[in-house]
Amino acid sequence: MASQSDQIGEFDLIQRFFKTGADAMHPKPAIGLGIGDDCALIHPALNEEIAITTDMLVEGRHFFVGADPELLGFKALAVNLSDLAAMGARPIGFTLALALPSANQQWLEAFSKGLFSIAKQYSCSLIGGDTTSGPLTISITAFGSLPTGKAIRRSGAKPGDDIWVSGTLGDARLALAALRHEIALSETDLQQIEHRMHQPTPRVELGIQLREVASAALDISDGLLGDLKHILEQSQVDAQIFLDRLPKSGILLKQNSAIQNQFAACGGDDYELCFTAGSHQRDAIHRISQSLELTLTHIGQITEKKNTAVQIELFSADGKRLSDTETMPLLKSFDHFAS
Amino acid sequence: MASQSDQIGEFDLIQRFFKTGADAMHPKPAIGLGIGDDCALIHPALNEEIAITTDMLVEGRHFFVGADPELLGFKALAVNLSDLAAMGARPIGFTLALALPSANQQWLEAFSKGLFSIAKQYSCSLIGGDTTSGPLTISITAFGSLPTGKAIRRSGAKPGDDIWVSGTLGDARLALAALRHEIALSETDLQQIEHRMHQPTPRVELGIQLREVASAALDISDGLLGDLKHILEQSQVDAQIFLDRLPKSGILLKQNSAIQNQFAACGGDDYELCFTAGSHQRDAIHRISQSLELTLTHIGQITEKKNTAVQIELFSADGKRLSDTETMPLLKSFDHFAS
Repeated sequence: MASQSDQIGEFDLIQRFFKTGADAMHPKPAIGLGIGDDCALIHPALNEEIAITTDMLVEGRHFFVGADPELLGFKALAVNLSDLAAMGARPIGFTLALALPSANQQWLEAFSKGLFSIAKQYSCSLIGGDTTSGPLTISITAFGSLPTGKAIRRSGAKPGDDIWVSGTLGDARLALAALRHEIALSETDLQQIEHRMHQPTPRVELGIQLREVASAALDISDGLLGDLKHILEQSQVDAQIFLDRLPKSGILLKQNSAIQNQFAACGGDDYELCFTAGSHQRDAIHRISQSLELTLTHIGQITEKKNTAVQIELFSADGKRLSDTETMPLLKSFDHFAS
Repeated sequence: MASQSDQIGEFDLIQRFFKTGADAMHPKPAIGLGIGDDCALIHPALNEEIAITTDMLVEGRHFFVGADPELLGFKALAVNLSDLAAMGARPIGFTLALALPSANQQWLEAFSKGLFSIAKQYSCSLIGGDTTSGPLTISITAFGSLPTGKAIRRSGAKPGDDIWVSGTLGDARLALAALRHEIALSETDLQQIEHRMHQPTPRVELGIQLREVASAALDISDGLLGDLKHILEQSQVDAQIFLDRLPKSGILLKQNSAIQNQFAACGGDDYELCFTAGSHQRDAIHRISQSLELTLTHIGQITEKKNTAVQIELFSADGKRLSDTETMPLLKSFDHFAS
């Protein structure tokens, strides 16, 4: 494990590809110390707290072997910013732990280009990291700030609340199906939706504006219905979802309704926000939608919990409740360990 | 990548092995929200800042294939607490990102046992994480608190400062050499030092007490001389080290002097603190040593920088300066990318 060599080494790598990128940014005042010491330092402003989230992406599991490193750098940070957004936190900085089979400079240049493009877009600085050889694995921990007590938790949904989602659902799953040749898509159609899989847009501004509006929120990474269950469990409530209301892109709407429902309801990799809010907030939500030029769709209701396990009742376009056998295939969530 | 299954899944795993352990602890008041939401929340006390460090451990690189999961859980957190200690920070909490080839319950039980044993010892709570399938990789990000402006940085060493190390050096490297059959050690001797490799003691209390005493500090993970260079580079100074002063265990002292010097000077995995302090602090340092019952050894001096690159001059027992060819093999640092 210990070894001696004069080739390009761990410290050079971090220095060259990451420290340079980090130094080029204007870190937020909350960052007291960035890369180069045993620890980074963050001091939040008075009456602010720090939101923390972590994700690990593994080659062959979360992205294809040989995936474009620039897209990968972008997405690795995007999915963490999406978690910050779901709490209503404003990004401050992140740490990067990276295992790489070899110190491939070309790969590192492209990866850091993608990484810093989104980091700059959201003023989120790289403040520390670790680089090692090993199977390609990317682990990012991201930090955001928000006024103390204002975080949107999963536990606040109340019976009677509306259920909302941002943007459209299912396109990332449709792009994956097309790239896997499970579904045939025209070149033009694929081009229009492929960015939803590779370069998700974290809904950071939406999260911040929802702080005073939403009763609960999360980001949809494993599919709407699977993720919604986390809100239900934490809030101890049930839900009714109207499948025909799920927002879909024009490309997904060209598919048959079974594919539409499955991909929109449990596709995964959407990185939209699902949130709940009292019905008195509808006007406020419409105003947020207009100001952000982002579609926000009312897709269902929170209801009283009926049984021991939380329950999602699904309704079809004609208002008919789907039977358990019709519902079952849709309620299965994305699971990294299942195979 | 998306898949459907009723077997034990990602969320169950996190729930069962980690949330239970986390819930059993009494988190520090700084932790506003732990596992179970999109993010954890930390709110430091007034006039405190948060120190953040991250590490990634890869099977076959940082630990042997098939390594004891209980020891691994312990060490994975210990090395991060060691980084917090080097800044003078008091541990608060940590996130864990874990890739595992399969959802092996026995492995997870042992790993979490080791992890929580050290987490409890240092009152450092698990506050979030991510679990996925993949080649065994452990990435921990740890958080500590300290009074604003009191962090011990690498950049504060001044010419004339004494250089100190805690504990003894080289035993972890000696244990590794014995386990690799590079060096023959008696069963009894190996038993006495093996814990230095598997269960390093993060010098948390020492770091806290050094806040008002040390001018610079870091923890020794890649070998004393290689790591000391980071202090020299950040502080723009040179150093003189007296090799015969390096503190060694009785077991290491049984080896020939070449092995002693190499393992103590650049063995790696020591997780002791190396720090600098003005000579007027010697009494204070002796008092800290006595109160913690921890040996602190004065091993050299910080000097003015002479050339473009920082330089470490090594001196032998008879006060003779080692030539560059004698010094060279000792100055090479542990590097994860070199092979």
